Amino acid sequence: MSILNFSIGIDIGGTNTDIGLVNQLGYVIESYHLKTAEYNDAQKFVNDIVILIQKLLYFNGIKDTHLIKGIGIGAPCGNYYDGTIDDAQNLKFRGKIPLKSMIEEQLHIPVVVTNDANAAAYGEMIYGGAKGMKNIVMFTLGTGVGGGIIVDGKLLYGSDGLAGELGHTILIPNGRKCNCGNSGCLEMYASMRGITQTCKELLEQFPDNDLAKLPFNKLDPKIIADAAYQGNEVAIETYRKTGEWLGIALANAVTFSSPQAIFLAGGIASNGDILLKPTRESFEKHKLFIYKNNIPILVSQLNENDAAILGAAALVF
Amino acid sequence: MSILNFSIGIDIGGTNTDIGLVNQLGYVIESYHLKTAEYNDAQKFVNDIVILIQKLLYFNGIKDTHLIKGIGIGAPCGNYYDGTIDDAQNLKFRGKIPLKSMIEEQLHIPVVVTNDANAAAYGEMIYGGAKGMKNIVMFTLGTGVGGGIIVDGKLLYGSDGLAGELGHTILIPNGRKCNCGNSGCLEMYASMRGITQTCKELLEQFPDNDLAKLPFNKLDPKIIADAAYQGNEVAIETYRKTGEWLGIALANAVTFSSPQAIFLAGGIASNGDILLKPTRESFEKHKLFIYKNNIPILVSQLNENDAAILGAAALVF
Repeated sequence: MSILNFSIGIDIGGTNTDIGLVNQLGYVIESYHLKTAEYNDAQKFVNDIVILIQKLLYFNGIKDTHLIKGIGIGAPCGNYYDGTIDDAQNLKFRGKIPLKSMIEEQLHIPVVVTNDANAAAYGEMIYGGAKGMKNIVMFTLGTGVGGGIIVDGKLLYGSDGLAGELGHTILIPNGRKCNCGNSGCLEMYASMRGITQTCKELLEQFPDNDLAKLPFNKLDPKIIADAAYQGNEVAIETYRKTGEWLGIALANAVTFSSPQAIFLAGGIASNGDILLKPTRESFEKHKLFIYKNNIPILVSQLNENDAAILGAAALVF
Repeated sequence: MSILNFSIGIDIGGTNTDIGLVNQLGYVIESYHLKTAEYNDAQKFVNDIVILIQKLLYFNGIKDTHLIKGIGIGAPCGNYYDGTIDDAQNLKFRGKIPLKSMIEEQLHIPVVVTNDANAAAYGEMIYGGAKGMKNIVMFTLGTGVGGGIIVDGKLLYGSDGLAGELGHTILIPNGRKCNCGNSGCLEMYASMRGITQTCKELLEQFPDNDLAKLPFNKLDPKIIADAAYQGNEVAIETYRKTGEWLGIALANAVTFSSPQAIFLAGGIASNGDILLKPTRESFEKHKLFIYKNNIPILVSQLNENDAAILGAAALVF
């Protein structure tokens, strides 16, 4: 592979879409952005993505599209086998969107589609802290909770391309009601919404706590984490409980695929020891005794701004 | 591959060890048995296995060991990568037993070791109801609960050969105490012991039920199933609860590896609709909505007497 190879990484989120030109050393040379939420029509959305890719190539002097190894796309409900987005609930264009064929038709560059958490896992292995590893599990902790499982160096896609939806494993049967229709999904405990809810439940027991004086709609995991680092007991207990729950989910993931490390990415994962310490303690307590190897719980080493683009770009390798 | 190829399948259980000569059509030509529990010494145990293999070959006129494609062994805590049994709690010989090298040294036939549930999953794919499938999850429901996960036609072993210990995923945090040290493992709800315990808990609420008149130590899943088929309400409720719990575990397995079918094997799985109906109902209720394909819950199609030997024998293919 020549040093002159590039790829395009596209991260489609409910609010923004980031499109980046990446070299094979894992450096985002330049990136453009779209407001996903402003698009009601998938074809118009794709057309604008194509225009931005053409701009990226033009302004970086890439005249030969053969230098682009491929276009990797991480998207909610991204389906690897079909190259589609399948009924993503946080996008305005519903149904099955044939993203791969729509883009390939216009650009004649091979396109790979997968969900954003799979892209994060793969990016971690190609460019991040999992370099050289072949068996990892990635949990992305943000608005929701996503999962990406790598087995023997390959993403686990399963029979239909939709394996690894770890945010929707049921952690607490009959627990908190989830958007997906089930109750007790991990996402309801370890996402932004989950952590905020845990804190609010605690504040009902401790209405004199400083956090209870904030406007109800201002409370978020970042503010709670800051308060925890300043010694606020409700905030500390919020993250302790979150870590306890998350640790069980990580231990359960080990019984499935026995990874050599588990990675955490996304905004929640960047909150440091206030989350990581109780998570690791719970993980060690709940990990089945037969797994004698140390299985470290690591935070993604990809720069948060670039991680999603890099993850998507890695898919073409 | 010639029709004259054979393999040896060995199923090591806590009580019995079964050793069978299998042809490549999946027919157990002849089998011998050892009482595992009578052996304190691993070397003596292996020596007797070797003698029985030699007898199998001799009495079936197989003079050339090249006709034997390999020896597959399913064992508790069988470690595929190392070819060992690692600290099996239900065997008298503790520590790490290098089964593969001990047998290969004497017979010069390649040996493959894995755990019994992995062997069951693989056997199902090669000889049973999963023929032609490439992505399945197998749950073995017996004294304990085991798991075997097949991804793209291969057993999922993970980083250390110990993936798929699905009996020890934590189903109910802080639930029933498990032998493994954790609480709430699936095994405590869907095994022989788990079902019996569920029934006993119900009988404390309904002390006039017919099953409460049985000697306490006579109650087992078979008797409870028979009672359920005769309309005993506590017995029916026992299996309804078991199915409800098991269905959640199966739905969670789908979020991991998105199989095309889930198989149930072992004594508990042979109890028919009294278990299967509530299991399927709970599975459909708890399966994440994005998995739109029908994922059937099937009972192993391997004859129960031969299943373990066939599963082990399949490993060499």
